[in-house]
Amino acid sequence: MTSETARIEAFSDGVFAIAITLLILEIRVPRPADGPLGVQLMRQWPSYVSFMISFCFIGIMWVNHHRLFNHIRRSDNLLMLFNLLLLLGVTFVPFPTSVLAAHLGQADQRLACVFYGGTYFAIAIFFNLLWRYASSPGRRLMDHGADAKGIEAITRQYALGPVAYLACIALAWVSVSASLAANFALACFFALPPKMER
Amino acid sequence: MTSETARIEAFSDGVFAIAITLLILEIRVPRPADGPLGVQLMRQWPSYVSFMISFCFIGIMWVNHHRLFNHIRRSDNLLMLFNLLLLLGVTFVPFPTSVLAAHLGQADQRLACVFYGGTYFAIAIFFNLLWRYASSPGRRLMDHGADAKGIEAITRQYALGPVAYLACIALAWVSVSASLAANFALACFFALPPKMER
Amino acid sequence: MTSETARIEAFSDGVFAIAITLLILEIRVPRPADGPLGVQLMRQWPSYVSFMISFCFIGIMWVNHHRLFNHIRRSDNLLMLFNLLLLLGVTFVPFPTSVLAAHLGQADQRLACVFYGGTYFAIAIFFNLLWRYASSPGRRLMDHGADAKGIEAITRQYALGPVAYLACIALAWVSVSASLAANFALACFFALPPKMER
Amino acid sequence: MTSETARIEAFSDGVFAIAITLLILEIRVPRPADGPLGVQLMRQWPSYVSFMISFCFIGIMWVNHHRLFNHIRRSDNLLMLFNLLLLLGVTFVPFPTSVLAAHLGQADQRLACVFYGGTYFAIAIFFNLLWRYASSPGRRLMDHGADAKGIEAITRQYALGPVAYLACIALAWVSVSASLAANFALACFFALPPKMER
Repeated sequence: MTSETARIEAFSDGVFAIAITLLILEIRVPRPADGPLGVQLMRQWPSYVSFMISFCFIGIMWVNHHRLFNHIRRSDNLLMLFNLLLLLGVTFVPFPTSVLAAHLGQADQRLACVFYGGTYFAIAIFFNLLWRYASSPGRRLMDHGADAKGIEAITRQYALGPVAYLACIALAWVSVSASLAANFALACFFALPPKMER
Repeated sequence: MTSETARIEAFSDGVFAIAITLLILEIRVPRPADGPLGVQLMRQWPSYVSFMISFCFIGIMWVNHHRLFNHIRRSDNLLMLFNLLLLLGVTFVPFPTSVLAAHLGQADQRLACVFYGGTYFAIAIFFNLLWRYASSPGRRLMDHGADAKGIEAITRQYALGPVAYLACIALAWVSVSASLAANFALACFFALPPKMER
Repeated sequence: MTSETARIEAFSDGVFAIAITLLILEIRVPRPADGPLGVQLMRQWPSYVSFMISFCFIGIMWVNHHRLFNHIRRSDNLLMLFNLLLLLGVTFVPFPTSVLAAHLGQADQRLACVFYGGTYFAIAIFFNLLWRYASSPGRRLMDHGADAKGIEAITRQYALGPVAYLACIALAWVSVSASLAANFALACFFALPPKMER
Repeated sequence: MTSETARIEAFSDGVFAIAITLLILEIRVPRPADGPLGVQLMRQWPSYVSFMISFCFIGIMWVNHHRLFNHIRRSDNLLMLFNLLLLLGVTFVPFPTSVLAAHLGQADQRLACVFYGGTYFAIAIFFNLLWRYASSPGRRLMDHGADAKGIEAITRQYALGPVAYLACIALAWVSVSASLAANFALACFFALPPKMER
């Protein structure tokens, strides 16, 4: 971490930390007047599922952001812009998550699921934009000691993202559960470091 | 980043990060009982527009803050005060933004638009105060290696801010849409680095 | 900033930044159905006043925290505890502030004002605890180069805090406005660096 | 703090800072229409108690996190995962806390108390996972200068956590008050540094 990217990382860490912490506010606290607490707590299971999944997803995005900035050493105006675009996606996540939690098992669950998947599709594109910009033109923003193979491996892993998330969205027409499961599998895939890097 | 301004930057980064992340809380999550989800999501377009615009604006303000503190190396009590004044403006942004989103297309949209523009006018003044104070008196707070031309360029760019935002506010009496478009154009102008610096 | 206090400062900066940014959430956004926007915005003036005052106060507390940790170089378990106690006071501030804003000009404004002043009284005590602990026993947590006069000056300024805030609270029985004005004057006094330090 | 764990600590600090600051939002601000302010403020005592306790608990968890990362110098993918798991527990705390505050003295207070204790039980397990992983296999993530005795002491102290919190939960069937008191005593125990380390 050099001073040039330090503030970008600090600001991004702040945004990730807040987005991940705000998720809990979406869960309604049952009041005594609502009926037996046990039943009330059970009934909210879609909220817990969406809280856990979103927490994992934002956490994994943070791990990826961290991984990218291990290679990036210098900063310029466009890098800051692409980073802001990515953070826009991250801060947006609580909204489609809440929409999904509110509509899971309801009439409009397919649309909620597509909206949710669409957000991750957009984020996957933003990740690619940031990484391609930082890594490609003569690698002028990269660490001097950056190994070409590790960079290549990230590029290949990320290239899969938009395609895979599109497939996820398409899957929602077959089955909402399958689409969400695929979404979760994808997150696990991006949690792992890219193959060549090891 | 020296230790003297490090905490000011860390604190400011925190405030920017939170202000930019809180924006999403302003968007209401449609419930199944509200009617078809698609219609509900569409109907909220002013909220999305104001979310996107405010995100860009706070992001651009962060980029500018970052740019200024690339030149500022030392800190004193008045600098901290002017920085707090600027942060006051930044944390206030979600309020006029929500007011604008709630009243766009309604009877009082002009007033909402003026209130919104007025906030950015105040912030433009606070940016000038901070920068003029830090850069002017014998440049005692500036980096020793700071290039006079780069500083001059920022000073000139910032001097345009208050005037331009005033014009934006005046434009609201002609057309609210034109005023908001001009507001957006101004933000893009401040996203760009000042001319001489390159 | 050495590594020993760096995390305490980073954590504290985060808490200050969030507490200062959450204040805006207390201001209600008028909806079109509430009546004319202008009237609605005007009617909320106690909220704006309490927002501005609380922003200034938390900002000034941050400046003071910053000032103290300019002298403190080492950390131990009790220092972390006293710092947490101080942060407890800081995060509590939005609650009495909202209570004050909701009750200003109402039947219970005196009690709201005393509750508000009481919070600052407690914070003044926590500031003294933190500073006395860090500075007194052979100055073992202080910077080696710390000047004794500067430390002395802070100790003297802070000793006034609890007494002055108690007087503020007592003043509420004479006049709520006078008590709030005295509160504001006190904040300005603590915004200034202690006399000897210069 | 080396650059390898610096971002993990910064991100974690952010999450802790936000979780601890959000707690105040759970306390309802009494409005003039609710009746006399004094009575209203008194009536909310369970909210204050749960605010204070949760603040202490998250503060103590932060102190512990700080203590662990004083020994941890290097980072890998699993460490980041275990750290995220721990942060998941931390961000979840405001929810069971609110549930407890809403149900204390009501019909379902036992269940609320068990739910609350269960959260701390899970966090105790996550703390053990993180620490065991970081400290055990040839100590490859630890500081070279780390003293074996200090590490051993933490391991022993933490091993008590899950067992003790389970006992706390069991105690809720005897008395809810006793269970909460035991919970508080446990927090104090973890606030203290482990015995051997001194």
